[in-house]
Amino acid sequence: MAKTAKSRASKTQRDILDLLRKHGSRIYDDLDHGRFPNFEIPSRSVGNIVYDTKLRQYVLGKSAALRSSKNTSQLRSFTQLMWLAFFANRLTQEKKSSTLRDVYYSSQAFSIDFDDQSESDNIIVDLEAVLAKPREAMHIFPEERSSVFGDLDIEYTVPGYEGKRMNLSNHPDGYAIGPSLTSAELVGTSAEMVIAIEKGGLFTRFVEEQVDKKFKSIIVDTGGQAPRSTRTLLKRLHDELSLPVIILTDGDVYGEHIAMVIKSGSANAAHLRELTVPDAKWVGVWASDIERYDLPTIPMTDSDIKRCHDLQKDPRYSHGIWKKELEVFLKIKRKAELEAFSKYGLTNITDRYLPQKIELARSL
Amino acid sequence: MAKTAKSRASKTQRDILDLLRKHGSRIYDDLDHGRFPNFEIPSRSVGNIVYDTKLRQYVLGKSAALRSSKNTSQLRSFTQLMWLAFFANRLTQEKKSSTLRDVYYSSQAFSIDFDDQSESDNIIVDLEAVLAKPREAMHIFPEERSSVFGDLDIEYTVPGYEGKRMNLSNHPDGYAIGPSLTSAELVGTSAEMVIAIEKGGLFTRFVEEQVDKKFKSIIVDTGGQAPRSTRTLLKRLHDELSLPVIILTDGDVYGEHIAMVIKSGSANAAHLRELTVPDAKWVGVWASDIERYDLPTIPMTDSDIKRCHDLQKDPRYSHGIWKKELEVFLKIKRKAELEAFSKYGLTNITDRYLPQKIELARSL
Repeated sequence: MAKTAKSRASKTQRDILDLLRKHGSRIYDDLDHGRFPNFEIPSRSVGNIVYDTKLRQYVLGKSAALRSSKNTSQLRSFTQLMWLAFFANRLTQEKKSSTLRDVYYSSQAFSIDFDDQSESDNIIVDLEAVLAKPREAMHIFPEERSSVFGDLDIEYTVPGYEGKRMNLSNHPDGYAIGPSLTSAELVGTSAEMVIAIEKGGLFTRFVEEQVDKKFKSIIVDTGGQAPRSTRTLLKRLHDELSLPVIILTDGDVYGEHIAMVIKSGSANAAHLRELTVPDAKWVGVWASDIERYDLPTIPMTDSDIKRCHDLQKDPRYSHGIWKKELEVFLKIKRKAELEAFSKYGLTNITDRYLPQKIELARSL
Repeated sequence: MAKTAKSRASKTQRDILDLLRKHGSRIYDDLDHGRFPNFEIPSRSVGNIVYDTKLRQYVLGKSAALRSSKNTSQLRSFTQLMWLAFFANRLTQEKKSSTLRDVYYSSQAFSIDFDDQSESDNIIVDLEAVLAKPREAMHIFPEERSSVFGDLDIEYTVPGYEGKRMNLSNHPDGYAIGPSLTSAELVGTSAEMVIAIEKGGLFTRFVEEQVDKKFKSIIVDTGGQAPRSTRTLLKRLHDELSLPVIILTDGDVYGEHIAMVIKSGSANAAHLRELTVPDAKWVGVWASDIERYDLPTIPMTDSDIKRCHDLQKDPRYSHGIWKKELEVFLKIKRKAELEAFSKYGLTNITDRYLPQKIELARSL
């Protein structure tokens, strides 16, 4: 098994290095033949982002732009992209972790000119689109951390910890989800599902009430909008360990969208496939649960209502519960938090609501 | 040792239950004697918050208010406080964790009227002031999570994990700091210091570069402004294991204040003693480091500058580096992030800057 873990990490690394070498060779080839080198970059403009009903996520269409060193107006971004590919190659070879911000500052050592971090962030997404690989594969990781708890055996692949095993059910406050965890081999689990929950307080409640044992589950705290590393882990738990994923959020339009992003990503990551769990199920808190469970509510704000109307234009919200719940929110103009169940006792959510929702998810 | 851990947790629990019983008995006594019961609450108004140079933190002065059930204008908040004391007693006895928001919703089951959560939050702080104990001792925990990594042996005291031991150096992404960790017995460590750092990306870098081993340290990610649970853990590491605490933040006025809050708390927690580490040292990034290390900078905004002027009125910023660095910020009107060191290579911060700052901290 140690071998498997090592091979997986090596394969990801080899894939990226191969891709970078392939693109690099083309550049050298152009130069050797006296041609101005260029990159072909899939267009990420709104007109080229389409919803793919089969993949159940946004994808990029066929249009692509040529970024050429011949065109003086493109020379700047061409050079930035060239440098970034060089730097990504170095990061990957040296297995050093970095962040978007690190890359921005690192560029200054090479006198590569970025006006500000947003310009370098944008070039990093360009490189993701060129390679069709997430930046995490090039060792550029998000800053945010959320956490996980449950009977899951992993085996690390990061330097210094290769081959070491860990079971994630011994620290009840949870294990931070960072580069080591997302790149680890998922060795095995006795769990039969994954429960992703929006808030740290509820995550602690779930661990305390032994939701991991009672419902044979792995519990993930998304800490609001789930960071990319958390979405990657959720996808891997689903794809590699065949675990169904259910999502619990606050009963408001933002909660509904947190669930949607876990399920089908976001339009601005249409060039990637690693960040979605199309089979994930949002099981609550639904607008219709507010009446069903007689929950204390808060009035929706104007911005909540506007957000509902905005989401109604998104094709993903044109059917099923996604459509229905937006309509109920707009009808009742009230929202409810996960903690609202505490009105009926602190364990009401785990004793009553959760079992009913798990039952429902199984029947869907 | 299992016994020690258990006794510590039992003692905290017993202290709170004793305090609540003492206050409860007074109420019953008043009722038995036909008197209107009341609470004496230390005043938390600005005029009663003073800086204590010996304790090196803000404390409450002597003025206190009587909240009496005789006064109809106080009856509402008197009742709210009574109920909260009852509910805190239940939480503590049942060892259930909760959050500020849980308490707000739980009140509705008892038809206790709070206009909104901010009203119930305020009553919770009143009860903290009455008992001079943090709400965590009454099982009301913060939502936020940050994380810790290093050679630290702990022993849990939370139900279901009592007596279980854990070493916090096996999961390189870090261990979330929640109720279980803050209430655990700190059994032992080979570390000789604690390094608190503001950002998740740098935390990962530090673990990757083995700062825990090279500098015999426990590394804490504060995730921006350190949550109360993180500050509690830092205090306990300092007080119980005699570990010096050093703090690294971004080189801006907000970073300086993040360090100050770890060191000496905030004015609105002047009624508590559990959330400060007066001996903690802010070692960087200082305004004066910007020139010394030739760091790439960002111009300060108007709000940064205003914030500097505001802090200059705070007595804690009237001397030493706290005063000096504010002055340098105002002079250069530039700020620098921790990642700025990446200009000189990703490991420049751990290879060069950190050792110099640790050396400096030892000499201070």
